[in-house]
Amino acid sequence: MSKTLRIGLLGLGVVGGGVVQVLAKEKEKLQKQTGVAISIDKVLVRPGEDKSALAKKYGFVLTTDFEDIVTDTNLDIIIELIGKVHPAKEFIEKALQNGKHVVTANKDLIAQHGVALNQLAKENRVSLFYEASVAGGIPILRTLTNNYLADEITDVMGIVNGTTNYMLTKMFENQLSYQIALEQAQALGFAESDPTNDVDGIDAAYKMVILAQFAYGMDVSMSDLEIEGIRSLTKTDVQAAQALGYEIKLIGRAKKYGQGIAVSVGPTLVDKYHPIASIKNEFNGIFIESSGIHQSMFYGPGAGALPTATSVLSDVVAIAKNKYLGIEPPLFNHFKVDTTLASDLEQIDSYYIALKVNDLAKVQAIFTEQAINIKKEHQQSDGWFVICEPIAKATLKELTPKLSTYAKIERVMKVIGE
Amino acid sequence: MSKTLRIGLLGLGVVGGGVVQVLAKEKEKLQKQTGVAISIDKVLVRPGEDKSALAKKYGFVLTTDFEDIVTDTNLDIIIELIGKVHPAKEFIEKALQNGKHVVTANKDLIAQHGVALNQLAKENRVSLFYEASVAGGIPILRTLTNNYLADEITDVMGIVNGTTNYMLTKMFENQLSYQIALEQAQALGFAESDPTNDVDGIDAAYKMVILAQFAYGMDVSMSDLEIEGIRSLTKTDVQAAQALGYEIKLIGRAKKYGQGIAVSVGPTLVDKYHPIASIKNEFNGIFIESSGIHQSMFYGPGAGALPTATSVLSDVVAIAKNKYLGIEPPLFNHFKVDTTLASDLEQIDSYYIALKVNDLAKVQAIFTEQAINIKKEHQQSDGWFVICEPIAKATLKELTPKLSTYAKIERVMKVIGE
Repeated sequence: MSKTLRIGLLGLGVVGGGVVQVLAKEKEKLQKQTGVAISIDKVLVRPGEDKSALAKKYGFVLTTDFEDIVTDTNLDIIIELIGKVHPAKEFIEKALQNGKHVVTANKDLIAQHGVALNQLAKENRVSLFYEASVAGGIPILRTLTNNYLADEITDVMGIVNGTTNYMLTKMFENQLSYQIALEQAQALGFAESDPTNDVDGIDAAYKMVILAQFAYGMDVSMSDLEIEGIRSLTKTDVQAAQALGYEIKLIGRAKKYGQGIAVSVGPTLVDKYHPIASIKNEFNGIFIESSGIHQSMFYGPGAGALPTATSVLSDVVAIAKNKYLGIEPPLFNHFKVDTTLASDLEQIDSYYIALKVNDLAKVQAIFTEQAINIKKEHQQSDGWFVICEPIAKATLKELTPKLSTYAKIERVMKVIGE
Repeated sequence: MSKTLRIGLLGLGVVGGGVVQVLAKEKEKLQKQTGVAISIDKVLVRPGEDKSALAKKYGFVLTTDFEDIVTDTNLDIIIELIGKVHPAKEFIEKALQNGKHVVTANKDLIAQHGVALNQLAKENRVSLFYEASVAGGIPILRTLTNNYLADEITDVMGIVNGTTNYMLTKMFENQLSYQIALEQAQALGFAESDPTNDVDGIDAAYKMVILAQFAYGMDVSMSDLEIEGIRSLTKTDVQAAQALGYEIKLIGRAKKYGQGIAVSVGPTLVDKYHPIASIKNEFNGIFIESSGIHQSMFYGPGAGALPTATSVLSDVVAIAKNKYLGIEPPLFNHFKVDTTLASDLEQIDSYYIALKVNDLAKVQAIFTEQAINIKKEHQQSDGWFVICEPIAKATLKELTPKLSTYAKIERVMKVIGE
């Protein structure tokens, strides 16, 4: 009983090339282990793009016309690797409507239109898988689906953007300014010439939307997130964090407070001995707190041709196994419960507050009045940098007007660890 | 369409109690998400053990007779949590023969008899799952099965014994001796009164046998492993490692050298900046090198009632999902290829060598003759501690007789990182 799974690949850039390469290398093993032969038959390239050498080497047909792929009844799976929302969305919709399984690494698209696309996949009885959309090489989505259903997740803390993690590592290790760290990241190819999506936290936010769906069965949209990037971090922030025993990481967080959940992205102080602090350079990591397992962390590359390609192929393998077993294509994420966003009163966290002070005694008196206890502090000329014991976000918001005569709040960041 | 999965539980100790507790807490969610109601109906306890309060609270029947469970046609799954090889082996065999799925956390048994038991499960068309047998709360086995088939693993480095990792952490952080660290671990309940299996590396070796099966599709037996524990580590070893910039960890390793694979357990120098070095205290971690993803790490608790219970229930959930889908029960690990053990000539690694020297010049001349390059070194009275560039294990073995007149080799450990 020989079965074959035929792939139409959209996009032959860095990751697309990686998929072709990894599949050629592992083809025999995959056929032996899944019982299904996997073959890339057709590839969509841009007009004028010359990929004929690759096509000849790996034996696939090139086309510049999507119709030519989506109407090809021999193809079982479409792998979408062209990125961004349009025309990827229209291509995937059409592929699903034509009864083809879809595998994609497109986080922008899934974060913004995943719910509708999953519904469309279900209606058409095909699979829509996107393991590579979050943290490239880290197998986190399928692991959440398969291993955490008997657990109750209470906090997901992710370093899910390699560019900013690389920059922050250099800002801490080599005392580089934000600007120099960005230029280094660009020179190494970790950051694009327009780094907006990375440094402003948008890319991390897309991934947190998807992680929240898998961790909590929660449909959250980008507008529900509080998002802050690293663009305005200064050497003073870095030095104060170091003096207090912390590193600064751009943390995407989906945390349960009572019954509500808050999803956010922002620069965060991480105790230097917390496992998250060990995630350096361009690597990603996702740290999970839960009532059963308590603490677990998944570490690996967040991007790159081969890691992402391997992750894409793990989705293809899942489809191959289902085909062999002859089962109804499952949804990637079955987990869905009604959840609410946590209010400012429910959100209780430990904060780092950097103040420029003109009357320290008055400021300290206000902290005492507000019942804000200070855990650690550091002073430097007119700067007062404190780590406070957990307080409600509502309390924090009340602080700014109360302090206004005696101090200016320069920066507020959440704190992880201890 | 209401389906029910009825469980017979063998053993109501710490982990068994955890399973009962976690299932009660997550029951509703699991039924909603899997479409199957999961119920613990009968529990095997030891004669004289009074668990009637628990039985009443959670609504199950107690028995002291295994026959009473294995012949009960209402039961679909047997969860085995009595540990050790006998009578767990006979119980599991009989359960599989009677057409019951089996979930176990028993690493001793699976490492030694897993191949035969998997065969028996296959013949009887039932599942035998054992996610909790390796690294308690870390979902590593199912992740290897589901996410690494399109990858090629080349090295698995595991801290898979929490007791020894706790002891080594204290020996490094607080300069404790082996004996004091052991006593502390025993006082905290991390080590048993007879710590042999932990400190001599046997427990870690069981887990590496299972990990090698999942990572390489390789059937390896305990006698194929080189196993060394931490019993003879001294403060001198700790101080020399620290002086060179390393920590010592008990590492279980399954590494590919060319086409051969070597599986071992032994104290190992780990560069203090390598992610493995961030795994402290009783935590476990598994670091994987592969051609696709390159580097990934899975971190979490290696033991404990709730983490292990959660892991056991993730196996039950997998069986529930398969039951709902009505598919043929799959083997836990489908991956199987012919592999050979790597020879001493193939095994090339970087080593730490601690020597007691009476003629340093002669010793250094012998290193030069043997083309062993020194990467780092540290001297202390008559002790010469070196980290050498990678050499074949065969070369290392030749060194002892050559050096005998001028030096005594006090200790050799593999080195990870840099």
